[in-house]
Amino acid sequence: MLPVAIDAMGGDHAPAEIVAGAELCVEQGIPVVLVGRPEEIGDTSIEVIPASEAIPMDADPTKSVRTMKDSSLVRAAEAVRDGKCSGMVSAGNTGAALTAATLRMKRIKGVGRPAIAAPVTNIGGGLPRILMDAGANVECTPDLLALFARMGAVYATTRYGVEAPRVGLLANGEEDSKGSPLTKAAFPLLAEAEWQHATNATFVGNVEGGDIFGDTVDVVVTDGFTGNIALKTLEGTARTIINALLAAFDHDDDARQGAQLLLPALLPLYEQANPDNVGGAALLGVNGICMISHGSSSANAILNATRTAHELAESDLVGKLAAALS
Amino acid sequence: MLPVAIDAMGGDHAPAEIVAGAELCVEQGIPVVLVGRPEEIGDTSIEVIPASEAIPMDADPTKSVRTMKDSSLVRAAEAVRDGKCSGMVSAGNTGAALTAATLRMKRIKGVGRPAIAAPVTNIGGGLPRILMDAGANVECTPDLLALFARMGAVYATTRYGVEAPRVGLLANGEEDSKGSPLTKAAFPLLAEAEWQHATNATFVGNVEGGDIFGDTVDVVVTDGFTGNIALKTLEGTARTIINALLAAFDHDDDARQGAQLLLPALLPLYEQANPDNVGGAALLGVNGICMISHGSSSANAILNATRTAHELAESDLVGKLAAALS
Repeated sequence: MLPVAIDAMGGDHAPAEIVAGAELCVEQGIPVVLVGRPEEIGDTSIEVIPASEAIPMDADPTKSVRTMKDSSLVRAAEAVRDGKCSGMVSAGNTGAALTAATLRMKRIKGVGRPAIAAPVTNIGGGLPRILMDAGANVECTPDLLALFARMGAVYATTRYGVEAPRVGLLANGEEDSKGSPLTKAAFPLLAEAEWQHATNATFVGNVEGGDIFGDTVDVVVTDGFTGNIALKTLEGTARTIINALLAAFDHDDDARQGAQLLLPALLPLYEQANPDNVGGAALLGVNGICMISHGSSSANAILNATRTAHELAESDLVGKLAAALS
Repeated sequence: MLPVAIDAMGGDHAPAEIVAGAELCVEQGIPVVLVGRPEEIGDTSIEVIPASEAIPMDADPTKSVRTMKDSSLVRAAEAVRDGKCSGMVSAGNTGAALTAATLRMKRIKGVGRPAIAAPVTNIGGGLPRILMDAGANVECTPDLLALFARMGAVYATTRYGVEAPRVGLLANGEEDSKGSPLTKAAFPLLAEAEWQHATNATFVGNVEGGDIFGDTVDVVVTDGFTGNIALKTLEGTARTIINALLAAFDHDDDARQGAQLLLPALLPLYEQANPDNVGGAALLGVNGICMISHGSSSANAILNATRTAHELAESDLVGKLAAALS
């Protein structure tokens, strides 16, 4: 298997944590190359694809990708395009990663716009849910939502082994009559039998925000504006509750002793809630694997995202998406 | 002070829990009347405004309000309109409550559409945030979002004593350049100095889903589609984490002992997270007080929503909204 290209320059803790993550990959037998400024990457046994520029986290995506042709993000995408790497991973500027991957790898035939499939950890057990689009496309057409449903179903099967994915349309109520003009227009497209048959998916109708965690759906389809808000609301809620809990655990001696006793039972939940463990979000619809890890990624987050990229390449995600869309 | 009209027939546990909630109000010196079928309300010392019909939880709002003129919801709204009651509280069909209040009480001058202001408990401390519109208006214009900002600011001051409310516009990123076509068109309206001056509010720009819990904003403005999804995502996330925690607390003897020790430190958080304690959502923009409590309301939830209605009437919320909009 070809190595995964890791953007050494992207992320709040780049390049140190990224390089450390790449080293963890090597230890676990996942082939990788680093992409970035050799002098900043420093001493490593890992192959480096040199790139002299680094796109800042807050740079304008389209402009920076067009002008910074020797940036680590652009070079990583080119390594995938040129068949030198099986996929790419970046914790850098999400919009720029998306733009670089789209412009360099090009879109799979039938893909109007690529979209971000974000895994939502199912705290308390069960497979993660897939929320898509999690932010790539602020404005969507009904056709795009239908595309996201199809790609999300293929992804649920390929990444999580969900044999018969249940796909829901995020709306302001479960009744068929609920929804925005966009979701109401998308509803009949998602209800069509043909794509469900082709992907072995079932369209379960409208789902609510609370269902992103429930056991009623595997893929939640929405536009990138709403998806971004739902995802950040969810992350913010979890972070707020966890912080309040941690404060309570340190409230007094009794609380500290109680927390100690609870630790073994709580640790699995804490691990589940840790965003470093989800393996990153996938950009679906481009001709290659592109994993987007959060900006604050630790070495462990990079390991998990890279392992996911490696596994998705092994299971030919792109080929499966292309087949489902043809 | 006039009594608050409590819809005895609305809610999953009506009328028993509702009547029990009304009795709690009386114990606490909050004047109330019950509205509904006397034979179902049963024995009580509380005055009953008779209404022979009950709008089902899942009935079509507009149709049911138009046809069920002797329903408890319609009669409650009329009691406010006719100056017999200071406000109304219902745990019934939200859409029907909204429609009944709007049609019977009429809108405040300058209000294009009333909106639901939902309190978001600030788990871990601090005042609740106000999310509006939380679901009344699926389709919004930029002007409506500007109206919600203005009403939300008045509400933050009147209900929570926030002297200089910070108002944010919910978007897919904090940068001014982010947003949907709707939020981008609303942004300059919210940035206007005049309304901020009139309400002593500050427009802080775009905020993200995670900010609904943060300390950067008091009022989060959004359309009813997005607001409903954000609110349900938030509630679902909290419920999922709390359920997972409760399971962990009962994992084994050590965990049970630890949970016992932690109880005093955790109880305040549990109380904060309990939706029964938030006091209900307010319908803003109608000529009267209308509190909407969640369908699963307990007696305690009714007590808190009714106390809020009573206090809002005492502080002349409607007069303050009218003044801010004139």
